[in-house]
Amino acid sequence: MKIAVDAMGGDHAPGEIVQGAVEAVRECGQEIVLVGDREKITAILGGKPPREIEIFHAPEAIAMGEHPAVAVRRKRQSSIVQAVKLVKEGEAQGLVSAGSTGAAMAASLLGLGRIRGIDRPAIASILPNRNGQTVLVDAGANVDCKPDNLLQFAIMGSLYAEKILGIQNPRVGLLNVGEEETKGNELTLATFPLLRDSHLHFIGNVEGRDVFAGTVDVVVCDGFVGNIVLKAGEGLAAALIHMIKEEITRSWLAKMGTVMTLPALKPFSRRLDYAEYGGAPLLGVNGVVIISHGSSSARAIKNAIKRAREAVENGLVGAIRESIGEITTDEKKAGIN
Amino acid sequence: MKIAVDAMGGDHAPGEIVQGAVEAVRECGQEIVLVGDREKITAILGGKPPREIEIFHAPEAIAMGEHPAVAVRRKRQSSIVQAVKLVKEGEAQGLVSAGSTGAAMAASLLGLGRIRGIDRPAIASILPNRNGQTVLVDAGANVDCKPDNLLQFAIMGSLYAEKILGIQNPRVGLLNVGEEETKGNELTLATFPLLRDSHLHFIGNVEGRDVFAGTVDVVVCDGFVGNIVLKAGEGLAAALIHMIKEEITRSWLAKMGTVMTLPALKPFSRRLDYAEYGGAPLLGVNGVVIISHGSSSARAIKNAIKRAREAVENGLVGAIRESIGEITTDEKKAGIN
Repeated sequence: MKIAVDAMGGDHAPGEIVQGAVEAVRECGQEIVLVGDREKITAILGGKPPREIEIFHAPEAIAMGEHPAVAVRRKRQSSIVQAVKLVKEGEAQGLVSAGSTGAAMAASLLGLGRIRGIDRPAIASILPNRNGQTVLVDAGANVDCKPDNLLQFAIMGSLYAEKILGIQNPRVGLLNVGEEETKGNELTLATFPLLRDSHLHFIGNVEGRDVFAGTVDVVVCDGFVGNIVLKAGEGLAAALIHMIKEEITRSWLAKMGTVMTLPALKPFSRRLDYAEYGGAPLLGVNGVVIISHGSSSARAIKNAIKRAREAVENGLVGAIRESIGEITTDEKKAGIN
Repeated sequence: MKIAVDAMGGDHAPGEIVQGAVEAVRECGQEIVLVGDREKITAILGGKPPREIEIFHAPEAIAMGEHPAVAVRRKRQSSIVQAVKLVKEGEAQGLVSAGSTGAAMAASLLGLGRIRGIDRPAIASILPNRNGQTVLVDAGANVDCKPDNLLQFAIMGSLYAEKILGIQNPRVGLLNVGEEETKGNELTLATFPLLRDSHLHFIGNVEGRDVFAGTVDVVVCDGFVGNIVLKAGEGLAAALIHMIKEEITRSWLAKMGTVMTLPALKPFSRRLDYAEYGGAPLLGVNGVVIISHGSSSARAIKNAIKRAREAVENGLVGAIRESIGEITTDEKKAGIN
């Protein structure tokens, strides 16, 4: 099984991306196709590249500022478009990109297409909570949503939690302003009955504080809310660390204390670091696509490659197809459109 | 100047509420009317109550679970309805309640009415950021909003930042999924031009990470998004503290270090503690109303009373009335409806 890696996408591309691929080979012997500028990639790989890595030459790259849909149509030779093509043609079984999220989504939609029955693919972000991990879906792909979209996000997020995170019978919650069924905006009020009547393990409305509390496994929301919760969380964690450092440098006793505390904090900060998880799956397209943070380090890319491998091994796309297919068939039988 | 305090509202009412009032008297000689069950309040105040405190008997109380609008109409003798009445009749100049947010809003709307030109009052939450404070408005009063509502929230939030937090020419940002003008959902796309063309110091779209970064003074959003950002932030901070404690107890060296670090962290945790700010102003009604957290301690109530006092002293309601009035008049002149 091969994973295609967009070597030209990300703030630290191609250096950290290529390095991440090398680390993935070292750690688990993963076969990888690095897609991008052959000359640059070869220079980074050096004289004796691992035999598990091959290079697929793509002379173009899509920059962060470009309009995703336009760039994907114009730059057919770009690394992301070519990486998607490898998956489409079966040359690779999954794909990792730390480039423009919009471009990765547009290229995947255009190249791989949506799973039948899924109206809008969604990004699932895997966040740390008190006891483990929470799947937040949609984390930013769709800013305006309909109730049906949220139901589909819930089904896909639940399958991801089960198949990839190994959570049995994942608890699905609808992100809302209160726990009562009567609380919410137009979208959540209309979504509640769809989730309640689904086959999912729906535990009802959950609130903002539940996202990091470990009281729910899959948190469902539209991509506008999801993006803002995600980035506010990142910002708050950064502000907290800044404030702690600021206070600590005011006292030598505290400084000494910190030196003694720091080693114990390492596993903790690792749980918060997005590089640890590696990337967010794009759910609902016909293929495994992992979208990594723009500022991904080699470690983030290595972990994203491992996530893509797990998704392929555990048949994530097939499971979504099957689950959604069943629903579509049931609805047809029942005469519901 | 007197502040009416709803003595029966909140998880720790009336004990902590009465205690908070006593502390406010001690700290700044504030005159206070405690509204609630006279017998209970008297028992807590003890033999020699401060002469700055008077009691206004209200035999009923509205519980957290009751339907706000229904309860406010039925329980005319409840502490929150009577406290609002005191403000309406000029017996008190401002009001603090830690009871049901919905009931406080409903009672204020019914009793004091909206400021002319404000379609929907909003809750402004004051959050700590890296350098100071950010006003988040609306923090939960209105789940579905129109662009005009958001413009009004922005005007009121900007006045609060200027008059009460002392920020000159406050930077106003629209909470969104990207900084570019073309980014957003239907609501934010339609709101952007209204804010751009207003008299406010509008700095454009801001992202989730800006909420706690100190890069913007007033963050504008609908109440659904605001409520979720606020509670997710509370939840993340709690989860972080839990994780830190968990890691620290694993090593005696870290434990010792923590003992030495803790005193330096006090000012830091104080900045994060909602009790420090005391409460969130309800902006857009004809009177000063401060809504405190349900779990408010005496210290939170004392600080909320100080916030109410500042709002009265600085003529917040008059300033909003004037600012909105000017706009309404300008629009009339220009023939805009």
